[in-house]
Order: sequence, then structure tokens, then C-alpha cells
Amino acid sequence: MKAVFIVIDGMGDRPLKEHSWKTPLELATTPALDYLAKMGACGILYAIRPGLPPGSGAAMLSLLGYDPFVHYRGRGALEALGSGVDIQSGDVAFRTNFSSVDENRVVLERRAIRYPNIGDEYKLAKIINDIRIEGFPEVKVIFNVAKEYRGSLIFRGPKLSRMVSSSDPEVVGEKAREVKPLDDSQEAMRTAKIVNQFSEQVYQTLNDHSINEKRRQEGSEPANYLLIRGASTLMALESLESIFGIKTACISKDPMARGVAMSAGMDIIEVEGATGDIDTNALAKGQAVVDNIDKYDLIYVHILGSDVASHDGSLENKKMMIEKVDGMVKLITEELGLEETVIAVTADHATPIKLKKHTGDFVPLVIAGKAVITDEVEFFSERACSRGGLNTVAGIDLMQILVNLLGKAERYGA
Amino acid sequence: MKAVFIVIDGMGDRPLKEHSWKTPLELATTPALDYLAKMGACGILYAIRPGLPPGSGAAMLSLLGYDPFVHYRGRGALEALGSGVDIQSGDVAFRTNFSSVDENRVVLERRAIRYPNIGDEYKLAKIINDIRIEGFPEVKVIFNVAKEYRGSLIFRGPKLSRMVSSSDPEVVGEKAREVKPLDDSQEAMRTAKIVNQFSEQVYQTLNDHSINEKRRQEGSEPANYLLIRGASTLMALESLESIFGIKTACISKDPMARGVAMSAGMDIIEVEGATGDIDTNALAKGQAVVDNIDKYDLIYVHILGSDVASHDGSLENKKMMIEKVDGMVKLITEELGLEETVIAVTADHATPIKLKKHTGDFVPLVIAGKAVITDEVEFFSERACSRGGLNTVAGIDLMQILVNLLGKAERYGA
Repeated sequence: MKAVFIVIDGMGDRPLKEHSWKTPLELATTPALDYLAKMGACGILYAIRPGLPPGSGAAMLSLLGYDPFVHYRGRGALEALGSGVDIQSGDVAFRTNFSSVDENRVVLERRAIRYPNIGDEYKLAKIINDIRIEGFPEVKVIFNVAKEYRGSLIFRGPKLSRMVSSSDPEVVGEKAREVKPLDDSQEAMRTAKIVNQFSEQVYQTLNDHSINEKRRQEGSEPANYLLIRGASTLMALESLESIFGIKTACISKDPMARGVAMSAGMDIIEVEGATGDIDTNALAKGQAVVDNIDKYDLIYVHILGSDVASHDGSLENKKMMIEKVDGMVKLITEELGLEETVIAVTADHATPIKLKKHTGDFVPLVIAGKAVITDEVEFFSERACSRGGLNTVAGIDLMQILVNLLGKAERYGA
Repeated sequence: MKAVFIVIDGMGDRPLKEHSWKTPLELATTPALDYLAKMGACGILYAIRPGLPPGSGAAMLSLLGYDPFVHYRGRGALEALGSGVDIQSGDVAFRTNFSSVDENRVVLERRAIRYPNIGDEYKLAKIINDIRIEGFPEVKVIFNVAKEYRGSLIFRGPKLSRMVSSSDPEVVGEKAREVKPLDDSQEAMRTAKIVNQFSEQVYQTLNDHSINEKRRQEGSEPANYLLIRGASTLMALESLESIFGIKTACISKDPMARGVAMSAGMDIIEVEGATGDIDTNALAKGQAVVDNIDKYDLIYVHILGSDVASHDGSLENKKMMIEKVDGMVKLITEELGLEETVIAVTADHATPIKLKKHTGDFVPLVIAGKAVITDEVEFFSERACSRGGLNTVAGIDLMQILVNLLGKAERYGA
């Protein structure tokens, strides 16, 4: 038996009044997902805890079977690891956004540099890597572009702490926040000072830089600030192979998801055309599953574009992404069949397009395969799956359920 | 968004053979609750743990999101706090019933002094407050009438413990129990001695008192004993505002519920005509919700009369109470609508009228509001809700689910 575990980031949503109270998933045309629902067992899932809006990294940990309240140490280090950055023990990593601020550091745009108008981020990264933080010559700055406006920032040096707050106000129109220590340690106070000093130097260096002058002339927003959040260090996870005795791989272009996967000892399968955005080639991801399934017990496929569309509030793009994933599911189902493959599809959280942020709503879950007890659900949607035979599944239990269907679960007790 | 969280104490019940196996809730006419079921998402709920009969105080803690196994410290202190008694740290508080015992201290009536034959309780309270416990002059007795036969008893003094048993046999026909220490501490042994000595003095003082002579002449049961239970101390809770960032208020006439609410930092909204009994003015409570909702994110409405009717084993009164609450729900739903209000209705536990005591059965739950994923449930009852899309909800998760629907839930992890 083989398992394919598909997580459609931010897929869950809420009823849309202007569309007869249907959700984007209900509005999308999804014959392949509906086929799985018909052939499989459905349910609803809370990745972390009912009503608690999950961050995608914490949710993915839970979906892989790790308690996020124990293991989650912030996003930056995961994203750095997943981006191929040489992150080391003791480093403090941050997640950053190129952003636009005015002269009072009021945020005008939280995500400067976005597809398709990209390219400047690499030039700006070089400049940032050359910054020497005044008063802290012993701290090395390692900055890497993750994707478009997203980057990873690492401070390497003595006496650093991840217990510092974020500079991201999370909305436009507010000032970038002063980073503060989150505990009483000297290290946290010192790290907060370092981040604030660094942030100011970034603005001073980038604001009048010729790259931004050019961007302004072209009508683009300047990328003159780095919003810094998610201070984190690397977490040590026991590998999925050690816990469950299964060989696993992850297909994702999202640095954070790749970082979680690498921390869990999963292989990363690279896929040409996968972008982590709405232009991703989902069929290529499906083909990569088919091509690589022989080498693994379980392949985890993560689709980020659905969450990108949701954060943008675009019903059309969200529907399009879901339908694109449906095509991928069709390819995988047709190629592998359900005789020797278990296919599970769910989301890590809802990102309602009306809210453009993660919520703690339940998301639909389907598990199809010859060993599952089928139910009467015939469609894959939040509503239909809430009547499913699996009832409510906690995210942290899903991996064990799949390992059981793989026939690899070890008995507890004699 | 606003939330109205209605808890109908003891509403849950079991099928009645002589009524075609319907439950009291199924027998009651509840168009407003059925409307919510139709427009909302339904499920079943165990306030504390499946099969575990909850006390109302522990259940309410759980329904507000506090782990009752961690935070519940007994009922007496809550009831005292909720009654406006000046309870202090170190005090041990008990819940008491005026009751009738015979000369062997066999309990004849666990609830002497009941509506509408009330009034004597205040005269008796004065007498009790004057008792000086023989051998323990340093212990101060603070007794307050809570409501009819219910009272709160506080012992204030050195070396007291809440680890003592109850004197209430919980059924008539048995002797009032000797109170015993529940651990090996000197304080528990001492406190048990104090309670037993005090109880005896109460009987000696009240049995032949002119008040009770008069009661006997009038054909009333004498109130010649205090059954003492629920030894407790005050618990310290982090406020709901601090945990969830929401402003909350509680509408309840039940001292225990008010005590829990006050411990959780909720405001108390006083309602003219609310009695905490079957004669309560539920419409006045509903109007108070409507009148005060602007000031809060969430108003918790507790209805005690349904549990009173259940403990009395009265199907008629239980149905009447449920229908009365239905009228309240109608008023709230019509006045506030479901566009900008989330209305949740559930119970803290079942009190089957045939058993007249709390059971660990599940209870129905409905959450109505424009953001919920609706299901096919069209009636509000134990049976109908067991097919609802919310499946099984743990009591402790409900507040987080409501906070999520209020749009106030904070994300866990980036």
C-alpha cells in the first residue's frame, strides 16, 4: 500500500451570501475530489484545535503527527531551512516581507515585489547582506530571498534569543512596530535592540537607493523596508521514519512546508513548474507523485496557491486553484487507482476570502482507499464532509490513521 | 459580530417510554430553537467528558474554556462569591441546604423552605450566624441565604481545609452523613471536626426553635438542619478578556453561575424578574441581552429553572421551561438577527426527569450565524442534533469556536 496525502493550503472557507450561501469549494467544479468523496470516507478536521486559527507551519506539524504546542518554534527557521539556507543551531531566524513604508515608517504595502513584477528582490538582498549592524559587529546578517516579497533573515552570533516580538503590524496604515523582548533575559533584550537597529539601517539604506528610485519612476511601490516576524530557532524532530517506520517525501514549493518536511526527515521531491503560487503546475506535481511513489510509503503534496488566492480575497483564483488541484487528483487517482493507494485530501486551515486571514473553522477531509469504511457523502465540500463517517478528526491523529491504512501501524501493548 | 451563548441548565434528557420514547425537548414546542437548528450548525456536546455527569459549576467552567480538572475548587466559594458574600482567600466555603431531619438526623426533606413558602430562611440565617462553635472559638461562621433552601456557609479562621466530605446523603431516608477528612492533613481533620460540631449545634438550636414550631403547626416541614456540601476555596482564573480578548457578561440568577462568571471576569447583568427558578421571566432575560449587546462581544445567558424542573422530575415544568426559553430565543433572534450575531444554545448537562440527577449523556448544541456551515438538521433536540455537522463538540472547545466566529481568535503559529 502507498499513501498520497494532499493538503490544499487555506482551502476551507465560509458560505458566500451572494452565491446562494455556497463556499468556494462548493462553487468549484471538482469531479475528481467528488469521486474520492464517493469512494471514500469523509469527515471534518481541525488541524490544531477547534476554533483555533492555525498558522500553516504549526498546522503542518500537527498533520504530520507532531504536537504543535510542543514542537513549533516559529516559522523563520523552518522557512530558512526549507529555502536551502545554511541555518545552524544557535542562529535566530526571522521571516521577512519586503514592504513599503512612508517616512514615518507607516506601512503602505506589506508585500512589495510580487509576481509577475519580480527581480528586484535579489538585488536588494545583496545590499541587505552587506549591512553591518551598528554597535553589534559580532552579529552576522544572512538574508535570503524566499519568494517574491518573502525572505529569510538570520542573525548569527553570540547571545541571541528567539523571544522577541514582530515588527509587522499585519495591516497597512499602521506604523511598523518596535520589536520588543518577550522575556526578561539579557539575550532577548539584546536581540530586540539588534533587530530594531537593523530595521532602521535597512530603511536608511534602501529608501533612496537607485533600485527604489527606479521602482517609483515605474509606478511600483518602493521596497524600502523589511517587516520582520516569526523569530525562531531550529526544532529537533524525531523523523517520521523513526516514529512510524515509513519512508516519506514532500512535494511543495513553499519554503516553510519544505522546512517542516526536512525537519521531519522527509525527502523533498523537486517539481519543474511548481511555484507555490496560483500559476503552479499542479499536474506536474501529480505526475511527480506517480513517478516517485515506488520509492516511498507516503508522499505529502502541499498546494500553496489556494492560500495565496484566499489571502488575496479572490473567489475566481480560489476556484481556479481548487479546480487545478482537482485535475491533479484526477491524474493521481487514474494512474495509481484506489486498490493499492490511499489518497487523503484535506486543508491545513480555512482562509475565508471575505476575511483574507486564517480562521479556526473546520475543513473537509476525505480518505479514499479500499480499506476505508465508506459513507454516503458524494461531494467534497465543507458541508458534505460534515456529514461524513469519519465525523471530526483531530489533525494530529491523521498521520496515524494513514499509517494504519498503509498497514504499517505498530500495536500498542501486547 | 456579537455572540449570545445560551445554556439551558439540565435541559438534556432521555427517551420517555410513555411518550413514544420522546425526550422532554422533543415533546416541547420550540419553533425558535428549531429555526436556529435549521439556519445553523448542530452537534452534540459533552460539557466535561463523555459519560461523566458534570456539576453545573464545573460544566460552566468548561463551557467558558477553562479546564475544570485544573480550575474547579468546589461550589461553595463560587456560590458565596456569586451571592455577593465577602469571601476571602483562606476561607472555606460550603454550599448548604436547609433541610428537615428527624431525631436520628435521618433526612426527611433535603430542601426545606421552597417557593412560594419562603421567608423563614432569613430569620433562621440570623440564628445560625450567632452560633459559636464549641471548642473552636477562633472560627467565625458567616452564613448567607442564597435562595430559598440554598445557602452559603463560610468558616473563617486559621488552619482550615477544603478537603472534607459532605454531610448530604443526597437522598431522603438516610442519615445526614458525618463529615470526614479527605486527606491526611491536620487541617482536614480539624475542619471535619468543626463541621460536625457546627452541624450538631445547628440542629440543637433550630429543632425546637419557635420558627420551626410554627412551621410544624402550619403543616410545613421544619427547617432544622443544614446539609453541608461542596467545601471549596476561591480559584484564581485568568479573565476571558485576557485569554480571548473579548468583553463578556453573564445573565444568571444562580449564585454559582454568577460566581463562575465573576471569577472569569465577566460583568453581571441584573434582570428584573429573573429568579433562577421555574417562575423566571425569560423574556426579560432576552430583552436584557438585546439591551446590553452593544457593550459586549459575548453575553452568556444561563437558565436554571430547567434544571430545577428536572430535579423535581416534572415533565410539565421541564417542557414549560424549555418553551419559555424558546420564547426568549425568539425574541433575541428577531431583535438581533443572524447577520451580525452568532447564537449558540446548549446545556451544561442532562438531568433526566426519571432520575432527577445529572447524567453524563450528551446534550444538543446549535450554533447559528451567517459564517457557519449549515447542515440538514431542522429540529433542536438530542436526537436531531446528533446528526449535525458539528458532530461531537467538547465543552472546553466551544468558547474558542465562538471566539473564532466572532473574528477574534488569534492564530497559533505563523
